[in-house]
Amino acid sequence: MPQPNLHSRSTVIDGLIVSKWSRKLFEAMQAGGLTAANCTCSVWEGFEDSMRAVGQWKQWLRENDDLIRQVYTADDIEQAKAEGRVGIILGWQNSDGFGEDIRTVALYAELGLRVVQLTYHNANSVGAGCLETIDRGLTDFGHELVAALNDAGILMDLSHVGSQTSADAVRVSKKPLAYTHCAPKALKDHPRNKSDEDLRMVADSGGMVGVTMFPPFMPRGSESTLEDYLEVIEYVINLCGEEQVGIGTDFTQDVPPEAMAYFLHYKGYGRSLLQPKGVVFPEEFKRIEQYPNLTNAMERRGWSEDRISRILGANWTRLFREVWI
Amino acid sequence: MPQPNLHSRSTVIDGLIVSKWSRKLFEAMQAGGLTAANCTCSVWEGFEDSMRAVGQWKQWLRENDDLIRQVYTADDIEQAKAEGRVGIILGWQNSDGFGEDIRTVALYAELGLRVVQLTYHNANSVGAGCLETIDRGLTDFGHELVAALNDAGILMDLSHVGSQTSADAVRVSKKPLAYTHCAPKALKDHPRNKSDEDLRMVADSGGMVGVTMFPPFMPRGSESTLEDYLEVIEYVINLCGEEQVGIGTDFTQDVPPEAMAYFLHYKGYGRSLLQPKGVVFPEEFKRIEQYPNLTNAMERRGWSEDRISRILGANWTRLFREVWI
Repeated sequence: MPQPNLHSRSTVIDGLIVSKWSRKLFEAMQAGGLTAANCTCSVWEGFEDSMRAVGQWKQWLRENDDLIRQVYTADDIEQAKAEGRVGIILGWQNSDGFGEDIRTVALYAELGLRVVQLTYHNANSVGAGCLETIDRGLTDFGHELVAALNDAGILMDLSHVGSQTSADAVRVSKKPLAYTHCAPKALKDHPRNKSDEDLRMVADSGGMVGVTMFPPFMPRGSESTLEDYLEVIEYVINLCGEEQVGIGTDFTQDVPPEAMAYFLHYKGYGRSLLQPKGVVFPEEFKRIEQYPNLTNAMERRGWSEDRISRILGANWTRLFREVWI
Repeated sequence: MPQPNLHSRSTVIDGLIVSKWSRKLFEAMQAGGLTAANCTCSVWEGFEDSMRAVGQWKQWLRENDDLIRQVYTADDIEQAKAEGRVGIILGWQNSDGFGEDIRTVALYAELGLRVVQLTYHNANSVGAGCLETIDRGLTDFGHELVAALNDAGILMDLSHVGSQTSADAVRVSKKPLAYTHCAPKALKDHPRNKSDEDLRMVADSGGMVGVTMFPPFMPRGSESTLEDYLEVIEYVINLCGEEQVGIGTDFTQDVPPEAMAYFLHYKGYGRSLLQPKGVVFPEEFKRIEQYPNLTNAMERRGWSEDRISRILGANWTRLFREVWI
């Protein structure tokens, strides 16, 4: 039988949201029953603009402190849940924001940066992204950065990172890593999707796979239903283990179509990198407010309450507790 | 009678040091019995380089944590004293490091920036320095910045700031301000020295005057003795009150002559702004290690233990407690 209160009782964590941030969006997160989310505040930006973005977030946090609070520790997630506020985990989808200066890692860590993807789509001073023609793995500076991120307790995200760079990072990192938002290549051959080997590599490190439901990465594309999404999650659970899987929607809520181009061109304005087709989300899960529908669908599908709790947030919390210091 | 232990018993705070930072320098600070010092980490630098400088400081703090600790609060100064470590107060001699972005103030405040001079020598987006031909006072952005510094609990320093900009800042600030390192114009007519009116204005705001002993600002220049320095301090005490005065040496220890040019040219490399002559310090107080000689001289001069304690550090601590939040 459906338990109508399971969603509101659960710790619900979104492994990655890259929406247009505003009070309206924070209200949507609260309405959706989100406990916390990894909120992207840097994609292509360099040092100064990334730091300014953190500054902008601090302003949003002050101005909307009835709705949201910053998450520095795993305990803060529990605190956010108790307060009925949405926990904001500051995260980057790129590491250019460090300005190729290893000393800045500790600065951002102190300001609460908790998740950093090493590369975004292409090569940078650290390594190669998943759309780069040749991935030669971590650079020398990339090795330095992995060690610094370990020391600072920042979780590394490999979602957009190339396979070789990812393998190097997993090999040298002293802490588990994550794909915060990806889908299995075995079900849909897309350069952003991950092979079974890649998925297992991260899970075996003690890390996690946040499964995205971005339709172009789904087997049935824009025809995908919420049931299809759960099927993809089950595939990853069977491959990686129930404790290594979570949600990472990659929701781009309220981002106008013309602004989407920023994500799809080199450095935001350069050559076209991706032209995703069929970005049509299922009716029942196209907006953050509809998060309770996800839990309901899990229940309908017969998942145990234990599994639902893990996938919705307990697994992310465990990983954060292990990696963040 | 001299009390040989008075110096080591006292809280000793230097209102401004801009030396060549190194472990050797930190050892000198400890040997001199310094409890804490406002350590300059930005002069001409813009946003990125100022943030990198804070990053460099965090590295020094980690690497030398047997000698130094960062000061975020007035209590941290007492803690530093108890631990026998030197308290590092991060400070700027300019406000260009905010990158003309008011949002970055909260970032730097969280990282421990506690003292900010509004301008350095010349005009910037905030106001005019004391060497600028025309000082038209605080700009619109300058007004915004003063409010932001108030909110962030950062002490404003007016040592190198123009008279009109200083007056505007004192007028609109909700918190007291300081000259961390200056000398009275009544005793020596120098563009960096402050008129009696300017000195009283800051003292009347509840703020403080850190008296420098940079020889070119002293009545007898390079002939100045430690006694002459104490005489200048007494002049300021008589003008401003015993609770509004402290020490601000402006020591540039270990800075090689060629690097001094950075401070004396516009933006560090532009036109020559100042050519100080006769920068010869008295033999008994030319290095940070010689700080105990200052206390001994105060005792020889017959100052009460209460006055010595105030001037050496109690006044600075009181002001910091009032301004920092």
